[in-house]
Amino acid sequence: MGAAEKLAEMTQEQLVQYLLRLGDNTLVLGHRVSEWCGKSPVLEEDIALANTALDLLGQTQLWLGRAADVQGEGKSADDLAFLRDVWDFRNVLLVELPNGDFGQTLMRQLLFDAYHAVLLAELVNSTDATISAIAEKASKEVAYHLERSRDTVIGLGDGTEESHNRMQAALDLLWPYVGEMFHSDAVDAAAVAAGIGPDPASLRPGFDAIVTAALAEATLVKPDSDFAHKGGRTGAMHTEHLGHMLCQMQWLQRAYPGNKW
Amino acid sequence: MGAAEKLAEMTQEQLVQYLLRLGDNTLVLGHRVSEWCGKSPVLEEDIALANTALDLLGQTQLWLGRAADVQGEGKSADDLAFLRDVWDFRNVLLVELPNGDFGQTLMRQLLFDAYHAVLLAELVNSTDATISAIAEKASKEVAYHLERSRDTVIGLGDGTEESHNRMQAALDLLWPYVGEMFHSDAVDAAAVAAGIGPDPASLRPGFDAIVTAALAEATLVKPDSDFAHKGGRTGAMHTEHLGHMLCQMQWLQRAYPGNKW
Repeated sequence: MGAAEKLAEMTQEQLVQYLLRLGDNTLVLGHRVSEWCGKSPVLEEDIALANTALDLLGQTQLWLGRAADVQGEGKSADDLAFLRDVWDFRNVLLVELPNGDFGQTLMRQLLFDAYHAVLLAELVNSTDATISAIAEKASKEVAYHLERSRDTVIGLGDGTEESHNRMQAALDLLWPYVGEMFHSDAVDAAAVAAGIGPDPASLRPGFDAIVTAALAEATLVKPDSDFAHKGGRTGAMHTEHLGHMLCQMQWLQRAYPGNKW
Repeated sequence: MGAAEKLAEMTQEQLVQYLLRLGDNTLVLGHRVSEWCGKSPVLEEDIALANTALDLLGQTQLWLGRAADVQGEGKSADDLAFLRDVWDFRNVLLVELPNGDFGQTLMRQLLFDAYHAVLLAELVNSTDATISAIAEKASKEVAYHLERSRDTVIGLGDGTEESHNRMQAALDLLWPYVGEMFHSDAVDAAAVAAGIGPDPASLRPGFDAIVTAALAEATLVKPDSDFAHKGGRTGAMHTEHLGHMLCQMQWLQRAYPGNKW
């Protein structure tokens, strides 16, 4: 087997991993956000969150559908969503954390949306035409997500004493999960080399610009520590919360295998 | 088909239902109590709750094992525990309610233990030798459960202002779920006629004697209302909580069918 052939083989497996990271982020966050359906503080927020969840699940269908195609084992996006166990998920830890209160959910959303928007802007330039097309479609939706989460975090941060304190607590809680989004490994290096996607570290300045401005306007203090939990996007370790979420999310396909709408 | 034969057929099906009610109560409450494992306020309580859960799960093995035998479809107690969906469960609603705080869990335990102890004392006299033997074994364990839940409810009820208020709130929350334990239907009538078990209504004075004395000593006020939620023991309607619990409880057998320890 020649060097080129071996590289190609690695690239296919790594491309699947790369696509799973994209699709698992949107799947897990989409499910979390959908947990608010019927329970949000006011009707308009309920509908807005449900729409955000639907956007993310629509993106998931595309990312995981592409992952299944590249994998070439005859699986569907649904198979990947509903029949993998926790150790096969590749989402960052941030998106699997429980919702907490409404403010915490929106703080998590801002932190992910800022990363997501900057990432998708780069993925539009991917040498993989499918990735580029998905990113093009998703970036329009995510621009709206970011506008909304940013405005809400500012409104609540620069709001009452109660809402301010809750938003600061949410930021303090979630900040240690930010760093993982900008870590890289061999999969990312291969993606960069192949022109598939950007170096995660290169996305940090764009993220910082968005988040720093939003937090300043929200009168919130960005934590000093750079400590970052990790293990989600590599699959090395997830929080205990993901397994519980999968119990709920995958129940129907687990209990009634192969059932269709 | 003669009348005697028809009665026998109904009795078999009703006996399965009767045993499911016994086994589902202990299964669902056992699982709920096990959710405290590693999370109780102090180590001794943690171990005590874990032991209670183990007792209840041991009783479940016997009740559901007997139900499966009578059913005669080649199923095991595990099949009944892990492969039925929510509409086939026959536990009273009280035991499927979420744990709430530690005090609420112990209040639920007292209310169930008092019923359970009085019921088992009658089931010892069952004309069905297996039911009698299971009741004999279980009643020793449940005497201990009752002693413990009673003492704890008294200690917390007649404790600090905070603990007193929490126990009163727990009692107010749970009281509307008491009445269902003493409802009866055709299955109970058939059980009485066959000498299998007691009329549920006949258990109420024994329950009231235990609970009224405990609540008085705990300085708690028994709610006036006789309103009672129902639907659990007949399977007509469960709370939304049971389905979520089954997602967690049945996950392993649903995701990995037929797997054994």
